[in-house]
Amino acid sequence: MTDLINLQGKLEYENLAKHIVNRLEWLGSFAKDPEGGITRLLYSKQWTDTQQALKSWMEAEGLEVKFDEVGNLSGIVKGVNQTETVLTGSHVDTVKNGGLFDGQFGIVAGILALIYLKDQYGTPKRNLEIVSLAEEEGSRFPYCFWGSKNIAGGAYKKDVENLADSNGVIFSDAISEAGFTFKDETKSPRQDLKVFVEIHVEQGNVLETEKKSVGIVKCIVGQRRFTIEVKGQANHAGTTPMGYRKDAVYAASQMIHETLNMAEQYGDPLVATVGRIDISPNIANVVPGKAAFTLDLRHIDKNTMFHFTERFIENINDISREHGVETVIKKWLDTDPVPMDPEITELIEKKCKEKNLSYKVMHSGAGHDAQIFAPSIPAAMLFVPSEKGISHNPGEYTAPADLAEGVKALISTLYELAYK
Amino acid sequence: MTDLINLQGKLEYENLAKHIVNRLEWLGSFAKDPEGGITRLLYSKQWTDTQQALKSWMEAEGLEVKFDEVGNLSGIVKGVNQTETVLTGSHVDTVKNGGLFDGQFGIVAGILALIYLKDQYGTPKRNLEIVSLAEEEGSRFPYCFWGSKNIAGGAYKKDVENLADSNGVIFSDAISEAGFTFKDETKSPRQDLKVFVEIHVEQGNVLETEKKSVGIVKCIVGQRRFTIEVKGQANHAGTTPMGYRKDAVYAASQMIHETLNMAEQYGDPLVATVGRIDISPNIANVVPGKAAFTLDLRHIDKNTMFHFTERFIENINDISREHGVETVIKKWLDTDPVPMDPEITELIEKKCKEKNLSYKVMHSGAGHDAQIFAPSIPAAMLFVPSEKGISHNPGEYTAPADLAEGVKALISTLYELAYK
Repeated sequence: MTDLINLQGKLEYENLAKHIVNRLEWLGSFAKDPEGGITRLLYSKQWTDTQQALKSWMEAEGLEVKFDEVGNLSGIVKGVNQTETVLTGSHVDTVKNGGLFDGQFGIVAGILALIYLKDQYGTPKRNLEIVSLAEEEGSRFPYCFWGSKNIAGGAYKKDVENLADSNGVIFSDAISEAGFTFKDETKSPRQDLKVFVEIHVEQGNVLETEKKSVGIVKCIVGQRRFTIEVKGQANHAGTTPMGYRKDAVYAASQMIHETLNMAEQYGDPLVATVGRIDISPNIANVVPGKAAFTLDLRHIDKNTMFHFTERFIENINDISREHGVETVIKKWLDTDPVPMDPEITELIEKKCKEKNLSYKVMHSGAGHDAQIFAPSIPAAMLFVPSEKGISHNPGEYTAPADLAEGVKALISTLYELAYK
Repeated sequence: MTDLINLQGKLEYENLAKHIVNRLEWLGSFAKDPEGGITRLLYSKQWTDTQQALKSWMEAEGLEVKFDEVGNLSGIVKGVNQTETVLTGSHVDTVKNGGLFDGQFGIVAGILALIYLKDQYGTPKRNLEIVSLAEEEGSRFPYCFWGSKNIAGGAYKKDVENLADSNGVIFSDAISEAGFTFKDETKSPRQDLKVFVEIHVEQGNVLETEKKSVGIVKCIVGQRRFTIEVKGQANHAGTTPMGYRKDAVYAASQMIHETLNMAEQYGDPLVATVGRIDISPNIANVVPGKAAFTLDLRHIDKNTMFHFTERFIENINDISREHGVETVIKKWLDTDPVPMDPEITELIEKKCKEKNLSYKVMHSGAGHDAQIFAPSIPAAMLFVPSEKGISHNPGEYTAPADLAEGVKALISTLYELAYK
């Protein structure tokens, strides 16, 4: 294990950035991908090594450490009132060949915040807990939020036990190989949790563009994903006059252009993405008989999303009729927007102002563990910038000064929640 | 070898259809594909078997038969004047899993026409020759018109000898395995050829739609093919507001739609096809960083094609600028339109009128061997309908009555050219 001792001296408000960067690199060293990034898939050797390293670090810092059944790792500063817990943390898993920040920054930030608070203010009124969540990305098995759902509710053995990873390894074998087991589903959920605060990298370039160090998330967007299948008729590209064609690509190109244009007209925060297109037979000299494309739609307001959905479907059907093709629209993902707790969001904003931190109240266009906690307890989220918005890539980067600003906002927030 | 004797009795004008269908099926039996169609790739066993079967048939019918060096097979009815030859024929090769008509119908039609003419009118004034051309499709090796170019000029050993098929077999090995060799390129081309007339299936649905049995080709279209590469910036589909994107698909969809729409506005006979689209990374929740698409453009008039090319390029560049993406347009194919010989075309039309055949003067949207002969000798083409325009597919079909009408038009034309 990389030497735990190689710290940057005592943690001070002024040397936060150095400590954060040191710990991120140290944690990354347990899960290096040969392609240059970080790969830490659920229950893999890299995952186990990382969780064990985190455990050792937290123990060395005097936190009370425990794993739950499924491998979520907690470090706790016990409070005067031990029936109430203020929880912070993020996910320890990564995508394949991901970066140094997505997920693990929220864990490093939380541990450093607890160390700092314990050191400065001693025993809190309530328990302060940092959790390194087992899984969020869905990178190894086709299932997301395994870690947070096992704490907040919604994770069931039957949903995952038979899932296979890309090597054919079954979930139930992977969990027991890592030394963990499924949760006892007859047990009631934790009653001590009073609030969850997560800090994460933005994965977009809004903060960078607006030159802000901290994002305060008001809402995590709802998402809808569709596949639009257009069926025309494959024909010889030379011998079929334009008027005799049922060209699936001609129709699909109009559908795509007008849908994205409509999204642009709706304005922020609506985003619409056609990320995937599949053409058949996809040969230069054949009029395409089939074209399928995906549409990813996100917004913080369910009604707007509903309204946009109605309008784009109507328009696509009109285009389909004009072109004489058959079009089938399939919705395969539909999640509602999740607002963050307004009181805690306001508290964070107040703290940012007090501490003179440069911040922006914004929404999150990506899903996060906080949305899993939000239905049962007040949940809030902080962002730090992502350079060029690069995400899920070894090129992820956030300037150390911004990381420190984020941790400062987290420290102030946790102080208010646990000590006041 | 399937029994040659199984013919339909003496060839009469009235039983042409039966003879044609019988011979097409018989020829197809030498090259059945397990997937249900016909696969006869250059110099394959199926190709050799078919050419040998044709040789036997032509010999049995009293034609003088010879192969040239590269495997073009000719059957000749010697004329009084043996320094002049009227040539008909088409290509014997097929695409992978093609149909019963593309190529081999022109050979069957030519042989039956020669048998009929010899039987009815005896020795012609000039040589009458039917050629089963070795190759046209480019299905085995990436080279088209190998057969006709070896007769009309333009085929060179250096261009093909090292080409490999999909199994890694080299052209020069394939030709010698089939018992043939490269042409002596120091020898001057055949001087006896006075005219080439080809009959072929339309591969489109113009004749079917207009309920005509015979097409008289005035011109074979020119073709231009382009690849348009659009480079934007890949981004997270949720965290990148619409205004911050450089979405390659948004730009490409507008380019495709407006280009095809412009082609429609130009009107017949311009055809434009976007047959292939490749997106990167092609993932539903990532704003695409790259989009590439092909554009296949055909017209019988070079100037119109030139004008259209200028306009669509200007428009694509405008769209590119609006979307803030980078676009590169690469032209990778450019062939001029090839007009057929107007005198022979008129002669065919006159004959169709005399014989009361239902015909349409039209252009060919696909390339054919006749365009290889056209620069050196007068060349002409006849079409018969393709049901639903289906081409390069086991589903190719032309009604026997239409096949017979086509052969009648060919017989009349060859009579005028060889006996008058």
